Amino acid sequence: MSLLDYFRSKQKKGSASLAKERLQILVAHERAERNKPSYLRDLQNELLQVVRKYVQVDDQAISVQLEQEGNQEILELNITLPEQRS
Amino acid sequence: MSLLDYFRSKQKKGSASLAKERLQILVAHERAERNKPSYLRDLQNELLQVVRKYVQVDDQAISVQLEQEGNQEILELNITLPEQRS
Repeated sequence: MSLLDYFRSKQKKGSASLAKERLQILVAHERAERNKPSYLRDLQNELLQVVRKYVQVDDQAISVQLEQEGNQEILELNITLPEQRS
Repeated sequence: MSLLDYFRSKQKKGSASLAKERLQILVAHERAERNKPSYLRDLQNELLQVVRKYVQVDDQAISVQLEQEGNQEILELNITLPEQRS
């Protein structure tokens, strides 16, 4: 199953009851060397700055998670957009 | 299954044979109104500019896909990183 298939299956399941607009960003970083410093935390802040150029949202509308498992780092940004967007 | 679980299951399957460093960005946009213009294509260019601040990669190392299904748009950026990064 590809990542695209995964998003599609999620959409089919929830789209009928979902009214709000939503933006979700997932960043997965697989590192070849375990001891290399990660830039994902800095990247996260810049991604949020870019998103804020396109959508006006409060801080409360954004949830950020950064998880690490071995050489795999996953950054998850969930943004709930206002229903009336300028 | 959450998105994080999905990334985890992918990592377990492929990590043994995978040597290259990889960065993957998925952006999913669920729109409440079908006729609203999408900003995902512009967002894509800015995300790539941000990524290029952190990693030096050729154009050939980046693959971009933008797919649309009803009110669901999915932007997929796959970036293969060089093994020796400055």
